[in-house]
Amino acid sequence: MSGLLSGIGVGPGDPELITLKALKALTRAAVLAYPAPPEGESLARSIAAPHLPGGQEEIAIRMPLEPGRFPAAEVYEEAAAALGARLKEGRDVAVLCEGDPFLYGSFLYLFERLAGRHRVEVIPGVSSPMACAAALGLPLAARNDVLAVIPAPLDDQRLAAQLANCDAAAIVKVGRHLARVRGVLDRLGLLDRAHYVERASMAAQRIMPLAAVATPAPYFSMVIVHRRGAAWR
Amino acid sequence: MSGLLSGIGVGPGDPELITLKALKALTRAAVLAYPAPPEGESLARSIAAPHLPGGQEEIAIRMPLEPGRFPAAEVYEEAAAALGARLKEGRDVAVLCEGDPFLYGSFLYLFERLAGRHRVEVIPGVSSPMACAAALGLPLAARNDVLAVIPAPLDDQRLAAQLANCDAAAIVKVGRHLARVRGVLDRLGLLDRAHYVERASMAAQRIMPLAAVATPAPYFSMVIVHRRGAAWR
Repeated sequence: MSGLLSGIGVGPGDPELITLKALKALTRAAVLAYPAPPEGESLARSIAAPHLPGGQEEIAIRMPLEPGRFPAAEVYEEAAAALGARLKEGRDVAVLCEGDPFLYGSFLYLFERLAGRHRVEVIPGVSSPMACAAALGLPLAARNDVLAVIPAPLDDQRLAAQLANCDAAAIVKVGRHLARVRGVLDRLGLLDRAHYVERASMAAQRIMPLAAVATPAPYFSMVIVHRRGAAWR
Repeated sequence: MSGLLSGIGVGPGDPELITLKALKALTRAAVLAYPAPPEGESLARSIAAPHLPGGQEEIAIRMPLEPGRFPAAEVYEEAAAALGARLKEGRDVAVLCEGDPFLYGSFLYLFERLAGRHRVEVIPGVSSPMACAAALGLPLAARNDVLAVIPAPLDDQRLAAQLANCDAAAIVKVGRHLARVRGVLDRLGLLDRAHYVERASMAAQRIMPLAAVATPAPYFSMVIVHRRGAAWR
């Protein structure tokens, strides 16, 4: 029988924000795979690291990091072939995903290539908008609020339209778009309602009003905006 | 010293979808509190039940269930007073929250009453949109998709405007609004892209195309819509 492919959400960064279900799946799989930068450590693996039993085959899926560009299809083709070969041998493969596998995860590109031909399960994880709200001590949405999760790379006009249409927003993938996002929020009169969170739930977590952020933002940064001030009133 | 108030996300329903951090916090608290119906079992407590050590004081916050109405402020005032008294005695209080505490949780109303006067921590949890996507085997958002979390009680016009403005939507709190939500999606030509999920990740989970749902929907039901068919392409 073919092996089981598990897309496992390991949560936003704190190794304690992993679920029991994720833990079980990642410790029993014969093969672990995870996205990684061209060189050095994988964030997804580092989140899971305290829980790894050792003795598993590990496959780092190394993604070229070109700002503003999505990794080339060849990276995923090659990774899908490598994982598919293990699955055909009847070995279970666990793909570690930061946050949740189905929310902007690179797992999506493996999923679309392997789901038709192999058994697949997805184990949801704590995603970063929730971790950012917890870090800020600011609710995301209450009652009949609309929450929008908006990627920062959208152009100014689309960003503004999205922000005008929701009650609260989590702007993700901020990184090099920080200054532009701040400009759009300023023109909408929302800058003083915008909070910046970097590496939520990790040891290096930083939070501050968006207006006070001076440094360039890393990829793992987010802006939380409440259009009506306090979302829960 | 005053006790610590912890808002703890216990996840969407499967007791294995609780995090290690939530487990630690809920087992070490002297007092457990949770929302509950006027009579009978609390869902949040039932999710945590397999993990409870016993010997903790428990406070069920019983919410009148009037469809379409939010519980009266008195319920929260009374609950906040009860929890505040324990905190003043130096006892830690854990409030169990379905999904994530800061996404439509009743914890918000305790938080706003107690956060100024007591130490508070929030432990994020796996929320139901992610659990629904995992159950369906359908990604929520990829690349620069905008994901909107939209409460079903919004009127038809606001629902339609929200659905027209995003790439993928999680329509929450469907319940008695099911037929109306289906009508709005049908008029937008989105009915065949809408999936229905009831009690995601629980033993009684049901999933089906929205067009095929015949029965009244329970409160814990959701509709996932991808405007562009497959969100991840």
